[in-house]
Amino acid sequence: MPTIAEIASLIGAAAPEKRDALARELRGVAALADAGADDLSFVGSDAYLNGLAHTRAAAVIVRRGAKLPPEVSAVVLTVDDVELALSRALDRFAPPPPQLPLGVDRAARVDPTACVGEGARVGPFVVIGARARVGERCAIHAGAFVGEDAVVGDDCTLWPNVVVRERVTLGRRVTVHAGAVIGSDGFGYRWDGARHAKVPQIGTVVIEDDVEIGSCACVDRAKVGVTRVGRGTKIDNLVQVAHNCTVGEHCVLAGQAGLAGSVTLGAGVVLGGGTSVSDHLTMGPGAMAAGRSGIATDIDAGARVSGMPALPHRQNLREQAALRRLPELISQIRRMEEEIAALKRRSTETENR
Amino acid sequence: MPTIAEIASLIGAAAPEKRDALARELRGVAALADAGADDLSFVGSDAYLNGLAHTRAAAVIVRRGAKLPPEVSAVVLTVDDVELALSRALDRFAPPPPQLPLGVDRAARVDPTACVGEGARVGPFVVIGARARVGERCAIHAGAFVGEDAVVGDDCTLWPNVVVRERVTLGRRVTVHAGAVIGSDGFGYRWDGARHAKVPQIGTVVIEDDVEIGSCACVDRAKVGVTRVGRGTKIDNLVQVAHNCTVGEHCVLAGQAGLAGSVTLGAGVVLGGGTSVSDHLTMGPGAMAAGRSGIATDIDAGARVSGMPALPHRQNLREQAALRRLPELISQIRRMEEEIAALKRRSTETENR
Amino acid sequence: MPTIAEIASLIGAAAPEKRDALARELRGVAALADAGADDLSFVGSDAYLNGLAHTRAAAVIVRRGAKLPPEVSAVVLTVDDVELALSRALDRFAPPPPQLPLGVDRAARVDPTACVGEGARVGPFVVIGARARVGERCAIHAGAFVGEDAVVGDDCTLWPNVVVRERVTLGRRVTVHAGAVIGSDGFGYRWDGARHAKVPQIGTVVIEDDVEIGSCACVDRAKVGVTRVGRGTKIDNLVQVAHNCTVGEHCVLAGQAGLAGSVTLGAGVVLGGGTSVSDHLTMGPGAMAAGRSGIATDIDAGARVSGMPALPHRQNLREQAALRRLPELISQIRRMEEEIAALKRRSTETENR
Repeated sequence: MPTIAEIASLIGAAAPEKRDALARELRGVAALADAGADDLSFVGSDAYLNGLAHTRAAAVIVRRGAKLPPEVSAVVLTVDDVELALSRALDRFAPPPPQLPLGVDRAARVDPTACVGEGARVGPFVVIGARARVGERCAIHAGAFVGEDAVVGDDCTLWPNVVVRERVTLGRRVTVHAGAVIGSDGFGYRWDGARHAKVPQIGTVVIEDDVEIGSCACVDRAKVGVTRVGRGTKIDNLVQVAHNCTVGEHCVLAGQAGLAGSVTLGAGVVLGGGTSVSDHLTMGPGAMAAGRSGIATDIDAGARVSGMPALPHRQNLREQAALRRLPELISQIRRMEEEIAALKRRSTETENR
Repeated sequence: MPTIAEIASLIGAAAPEKRDALARELRGVAALADAGADDLSFVGSDAYLNGLAHTRAAAVIVRRGAKLPPEVSAVVLTVDDVELALSRALDRFAPPPPQLPLGVDRAARVDPTACVGEGARVGPFVVIGARARVGERCAIHAGAFVGEDAVVGDDCTLWPNVVVRERVTLGRRVTVHAGAVIGSDGFGYRWDGARHAKVPQIGTVVIEDDVEIGSCACVDRAKVGVTRVGRGTKIDNLVQVAHNCTVGEHCVLAGQAGLAGSVTLGAGVVLGGGTSVSDHLTMGPGAMAAGRSGIATDIDAGARVSGMPALPHRQNLREQAALRRLPELISQIRRMEEEIAALKRRSTETENR
Repeated sequence: MPTIAEIASLIGAAAPEKRDALARELRGVAALADAGADDLSFVGSDAYLNGLAHTRAAAVIVRRGAKLPPEVSAVVLTVDDVELALSRALDRFAPPPPQLPLGVDRAARVDPTACVGEGARVGPFVVIGARARVGERCAIHAGAFVGEDAVVGDDCTLWPNVVVRERVTLGRRVTVHAGAVIGSDGFGYRWDGARHAKVPQIGTVVIEDDVEIGSCACVDRAKVGVTRVGRGTKIDNLVQVAHNCTVGEHCVLAGQAGLAGSVTLGAGVVLGGGTSVSDHLTMGPGAMAAGRSGIATDIDAGARVSGMPALPHRQNLREQAALRRLPELISQIRRMEEEIAALKRRSTETENR
């Protein structure tokens, strides 16, 4: 395990004062309150600075310039960006991910016409369909399914029980978490007078490079053409991406967000958890929606919105503040009405004098 | 592949003018902007009519009477209902769905007391439990699970990793998409002073004919009796149907909608994406809720509702419009108060003259 | 099957009048309207008392003191707590749960270094990873996955296709329903100027004793330390618990609820269906949120909240009632403005007299 000195160097921390402690080995990373005497810890927000006085951690990453409590026994590693430093340190302590044996498990079912790249690892009870291609160094974990003619690019990871349906294409370095489903039929029907007749969903899904998709998330195939998730986009658990959506590059869709059909998200759009976007709408590049927003109109590039229906964030805050005052306002209006009535009486009396 | 003439005939299009092009073969269907020179395309909404001038498509389905731009190189196929025509055309171009080999895969586990109908196809790593019955011509894809005493009617499709728990009944022509779960225990507990004691969920689930259920959707078994999804109903991805719900025929539940326990939906109810219905409520036949509605009272047959809590749609629009004006209203009320105070002073001065 | 007398004794019902019927055997439990002549039924709410006159049920559980209709043919079993009595009776009628054969199925893949306890049952196509421990009397159903170094306590049930990732710990008597995923990576990224760089999620998940987790629910592993679900907590289908959450003991999270990262729920917190809690917030012990609440601030112990953003429930009701009146209020304010203007004119006229 790394010494404090090694971590300090890795994260570019200012040379700490307690030089005699630098050779100490660190065993793990933990929150201030949970850390043991061999742990690295961190102060993610100044609100937690007081915890420094009581932590048992051997070393703590702290923002440069933060005001420390008087008695800190831990070695303090000051950096400009705690999150970045922590992220680098975590890499150093991360346990190795579970690794399947090289090659195809004898209990996997790989179609003879499928192609599995060199260095790939295919677990038990995996199915790889006819003419599918799985790239080099991929890890396809137990119970995952790759349909006919699907393409999984190099260095992808499919966790257990992921389903990638026929003709879907995943780029390189795509990670799909357990239970997610890529390429189910889009939800399209047409009432024919007697029943909801299914509209064939003959399109497919393209997931570009470096995308990560959460557990039990669903990305449906297009009615025609392609449902696309752009390069570098991150999709959290239980998110729904309906047919014919186009999600731009480097977007972030937090847990339980949902896109209805034919939604277009520009590059770098961020949706907070539980946010939904109605069908056929467009959000411009860099637009951000707070958690649980209900997007019901097109959203301009770079806009910040919140609420349901989603409004510009400041407007939503103003309306919410006003709504907080509404019950009191009703009383006030009642009093004003009485005062107006009284004024009218006085006015009439004055006039009649 | 079909010629333009064949498609024109299939969709009942008016005889097009460019007769020499009718023998041309079409290779696929694509949106106006994406279409290549061998593609069929369509104008789904008049808003896209201008795209006709630039499309490379060989033929385009257009609403009869739509105003075309002057220069259209594609063959224009005019119809009364573009969606219907497109739906028929898509059928013609749909790639054949992935087809399992006839019979039971050697890596499936079918209980000796289970019964699999003629013409059924059972994929690898499928489990079919004791006394379960799988109908004729069913397709049970890899990793799907059919529990003890469950019944799957003729011509059903279970996509990979679907779970149908014990004693559940599916009708005919039911499609369940990957990762959906039918028949988990209802969520019922009773606080006994020390813990949430589980209320046994001894009922089951009945899914009637021609239902389609989306990926990672959940339909729970009843506490007592049956959770029922009526004939022809379509349920999208990630929808929750809790114990003892009764969903009528031909309903549509869009993505991430949720029904709490013992909800009753009449025939033809439509729930927009993310809409939730509180427990024990009833929505009358034909009621429609906009996306993200929060149904908190019974809803009349044929009503249109929206908002949270859901209100009649027009009322909700009126309230939302009023809420948009509320911040300004507060300023206005403040001004009015000042004016009333001024009037009082003037009135007092006048009286004291 | 039990006689009416046996059920009366089991649920502590007052000695019924129709003593000659007591030896009759009951075959099942059904709602009043659905019950056949051999069924036990129940009146869950006084609203349904009239149904007693028409039910074919052999016996009915009714609240002591309820006002019965004049002609009731069923044996009436009066109790203090219908729900409790029904729960006990259901136990008696519950069909035996599906039981896997003892031991490890020959089509399961159990790593030689894994340990499976005595009396455990492991179904086909299950994977149990290196060094994992599965406790005594566990039932691990078909297609479930238990990762490396994971611990599943005694008497747990994993339904089909559940995924428990590496290093996750489940306590004793934990039930996880089909398709749920425990221990996927938390959703953590850091924008490095060019891309969302993944923050390693090196922590894990601890699910304590007697927890039940619904179908397609997701509990993510911690960035550092542990995502914890406390003893006796019940989590419904499609719920999201993000990284580093701490859910207290005996909480109830209804369907489609969602916790963002680092949320803390005290003991006994209840979240209605579809409720979301923003990141880093705390809800005190016993706090309750109505369905679809959007928790956006810390919530006090014992508080009752609702709405989005969630407010104290009474305040929310008051605001909603006020909002219902807002459109009318706007007309009223317009009238008042006119009256004020008229008063001003009168006042000026009076002064000028």
